[in-house]
Amino acid sequence: MDLRSTQLSALTCLLFVSSCCHGGNILVLPEDGSHWVNIQVIMRNLHTRGHSLTVVRSSKSWYIQENSSLYNIVTVSPMETEDVGPDYFKMLIERSLALQRMSPFVRFFEQQKDITNMLKVFHNAALQMISTILDDAALVERLREAKFDLLLTDPAFPIGVLLANFLQLPLVYNVRWLNTGDAHIQIAPSPPSYIPVYNSLLHDQMSFMQRTENFLRHLFSLLQERLIIVPIYSELLERHFPPGTSLLSAQQSADIWLMRVDFVFEFPRPTMPNVVYIGGFQCQPAQALPEDLEEFMQSSGEHGVVIMSLGAVVGALPKTITEAIATAFAEIPQKVVWRYHGERPSTLGNNTLLLEWFPQNDLLGHPKTRMFVSHGGTNGIYEAIYHGVPVLALPILFDQFDNVLRLQVRSAARVLQVATLTSQEFLEGLKDVLENPMYQSNIRKLSKLHRDRPLSPLDSATFWIEFVMRHKGAAHLRSEANNLPWYSYHNLDVLAFLLAFTVIALLTSVYVCKLLCCRKSIKKRKVD
Amino acid sequence: MDLRSTQLSALTCLLFVSSCCHGGNILVLPEDGSHWVNIQVIMRNLHTRGHSLTVVRSSKSWYIQENSSLYNIVTVSPMETEDVGPDYFKMLIERSLALQRMSPFVRFFEQQKDITNMLKVFHNAALQMISTILDDAALVERLREAKFDLLLTDPAFPIGVLLANFLQLPLVYNVRWLNTGDAHIQIAPSPPSYIPVYNSLLHDQMSFMQRTENFLRHLFSLLQERLIIVPIYSELLERHFPPGTSLLSAQQSADIWLMRVDFVFEFPRPTMPNVVYIGGFQCQPAQALPEDLEEFMQSSGEHGVVIMSLGAVVGALPKTITEAIATAFAEIPQKVVWRYHGERPSTLGNNTLLLEWFPQNDLLGHPKTRMFVSHGGTNGIYEAIYHGVPVLALPILFDQFDNVLRLQVRSAARVLQVATLTSQEFLEGLKDVLENPMYQSNIRKLSKLHRDRPLSPLDSATFWIEFVMRHKGAAHLRSEANNLPWYSYHNLDVLAFLLAFTVIALLTSVYVCKLLCCRKSIKKRKVD
Repeated sequence: MDLRSTQLSALTCLLFVSSCCHGGNILVLPEDGSHWVNIQVIMRNLHTRGHSLTVVRSSKSWYIQENSSLYNIVTVSPMETEDVGPDYFKMLIERSLALQRMSPFVRFFEQQKDITNMLKVFHNAALQMISTILDDAALVERLREAKFDLLLTDPAFPIGVLLANFLQLPLVYNVRWLNTGDAHIQIAPSPPSYIPVYNSLLHDQMSFMQRTENFLRHLFSLLQERLIIVPIYSELLERHFPPGTSLLSAQQSADIWLMRVDFVFEFPRPTMPNVVYIGGFQCQPAQALPEDLEEFMQSSGEHGVVIMSLGAVVGALPKTITEAIATAFAEIPQKVVWRYHGERPSTLGNNTLLLEWFPQNDLLGHPKTRMFVSHGGTNGIYEAIYHGVPVLALPILFDQFDNVLRLQVRSAARVLQVATLTSQEFLEGLKDVLENPMYQSNIRKLSKLHRDRPLSPLDSATFWIEFVMRHKGAAHLRSEANNLPWYSYHNLDVLAFLLAFTVIALLTSVYVCKLLCCRKSIKKRKVD
Repeated sequence: MDLRSTQLSALTCLLFVSSCCHGGNILVLPEDGSHWVNIQVIMRNLHTRGHSLTVVRSSKSWYIQENSSLYNIVTVSPMETEDVGPDYFKMLIERSLALQRMSPFVRFFEQQKDITNMLKVFHNAALQMISTILDDAALVERLREAKFDLLLTDPAFPIGVLLANFLQLPLVYNVRWLNTGDAHIQIAPSPPSYIPVYNSLLHDQMSFMQRTENFLRHLFSLLQERLIIVPIYSELLERHFPPGTSLLSAQQSADIWLMRVDFVFEFPRPTMPNVVYIGGFQCQPAQALPEDLEEFMQSSGEHGVVIMSLGAVVGALPKTITEAIATAFAEIPQKVVWRYHGERPSTLGNNTLLLEWFPQNDLLGHPKTRMFVSHGGTNGIYEAIYHGVPVLALPILFDQFDNVLRLQVRSAARVLQVATLTSQEFLEGLKDVLENPMYQSNIRKLSKLHRDRPLSPLDSATFWIEFVMRHKGAAHLRSEANNLPWYSYHNLDVLAFLLAFTVIALLTSVYVCKLLCCRKSIKKRKVD
């Protein structure tokens, strides 16, 4: 069979862009950090297609610039809350390294304590932000008068969710996380028997004890949601929303969920008709590198280059670890490009180039690139899949552990524990991923599957955003499940009714039988 | 906002067809009747794109021709079974009309008896067919040697399913029904709290008692599947398949499920990553009509034309009903084109043209067409949606009752009961659908939503069939749920374990407490 792989994506994409439509008016409520980096990819595409964008940002934002030719800005100054700036993240990293050194059992409880605290900190900041907006009558009036066609938000924290519900705007999510984990849990059936809970480090094939653990984690995360997150917003909901509005129903009301997931990466699981998968939408063919960087890449000869980055919010690791990494790098024949902040490691080899920032996507798509040393952030992982580059993973925070596990079970990555990393271990890991062809071959397979789709993920995202604007929502794709209380959804009321009915029927028949028997025996006695 | 509706489908379609790929070798196991009519649409598209098709048919087939330029043929002559030809269908229709006259309660049980009998008849015929194939060593060898890249089947009856599993071929379904109802039930979570069971005439918003009814129907259909269908194939599975192979696991093993569903029609419900929705794939822009038919259409003037068809397998209705229909037609100012077999009704008006066959899609897409009188077969309903023509429905068999209900709850159709139809009722129905603009406006809305997609349903079907050939399957989209026993899937084993653990822990602590208390009181007594 000679099936030419039909590279439709690029072609349909071109065509799609050319059949442009005009003048949508979109309100954007983004999250900060890497979430902002990736929502901008969608925003740029919408801008190119002639839509007007207005971004609402907090005055405390680290990433979202006040001035841009891409969007209009509304800056809101929420009251003081606990600072969630770079120092907070530094503390989180130190804590995460400390946790890695604990026993699994202790780690679980310490982690849950940390997650609970973190949820409180972030959701209180979100509450301040949305309260500040809704309490400002003039701002609300301005937003109403702007007559937006749609609100686009990353709903990790529900500022945009609540604002869309308040303004009654059609709502589209750019989403992966919601409340205590994977956003799917809020909208699609998620049996814990084969759907691993966020942060569990489990996959979709579990032993009986792992299923028990996953089940308990699932319950635990539902409790965290109901007992910690939901109450934070209850006073605000009472004050500004019609009676009976709940945070969860507001979250479930989105018209389209653009999910940053692709099933070459995530384990296959139930989904819903209004979920559109756009995992990897930020990936693009590599552009030419700056001249000096290209020269460095070429100087690697046949050995090629290792690319290393621990992402945007990860500052310097403890010195012992960076020294161990530098030592190992110095011993391999490859060249290394390392995105690095902080003091230069003393053991750095001549083969290693330190850069404060680099064009990661272009480096990963470079023909000399052999491997990617990564913390396992979603953006980087999808770029590695897109370009087919095997990964040596050093996960540090949040979803990074789960992300790299998904590559590991497909034998496309090897994972090391950062907290206890030695130079020897890291060197052994480097050599394994560089020399064992399994990693290369598996990530290439994933890359082929990932790229083979009738419409690129970014075009999908754009199509569905415009679909919602054209039809003023997508109510026909939203399921009735969201309108049922949980006990009705699971048929518990029906089961209770049927059980009661059966018991009453049984008791009645027993009673009737007894009555008949009694009469008979009375009659019999009388006859006797 | 000026959003031009982006008509991408036609454009991407052109492009898609032009970037053709060559030479896939596809084995097709179709169903007969209207299922054959619609799988041929996909086959023609695959043929145009250079794939070779081989069809396996029964020598008793009514529709599947022995000779065609579209496909090679393998004709199999299964042993005698109960005949499921036109006479059988005539009996089913008579029985269905009789059922409509019964009380709902009696009807339910009579219906279940009928369904049980029908399942036995059809599945025994399917068993004969697959047995004949697998018992014929020479034929099996021929099929093996042909080195097919993929088996495409309509799995309503599992001939293709079992053959694909036997030959270990990648498997793609063109599917809506499987075993006792909607095929989704075999692959995706289907809570009966908001997902109406096949033939229930319920929709996705149910009262408590309707949910109870639906729950019981759900259990009933599971029992029918386990107790009637599954045992029919057990001896064959033992004889020809590795130990442990079950019918249900074979059915769940398909790589891609091309589902003949669109959510402007079906109620939104959970789905899975390997389900691709192609509802309406057979619809096309209307072609020019034959000259005499076009003349008839134009002669209707401003009043327009009513189109009526009761589908391919429905022969003549009882005379009283056809006379009632003809009488009512004679009283409306519209012209009527009626697809009709049998004796000419005596009350037929001059405005009504009887035809044994007509180009239904082209008639429905004609600008003079005002309304469609239909039995509610899936193909016709999707054509009505595609062309935005309101429906007056006379459901008779199978899924037709559920199909027309889906248009009725969206106020795009009116439904009448055929068995007791009077001329007055039918006339009133005709006038209502013709004169109340609600029907027109709602079906046009559905039409707009249905046509607004980035890739046409037929192109989606073709893309995913070729995807499976390119990658020799789509294992990465198949969920682990299929590998779990039902009690593990629903966590019942985990719940039992946790309950047992809790009870033992409680009993142990009570015992220990008692022991301690006893000791204390003994000590106390001793001290006293």
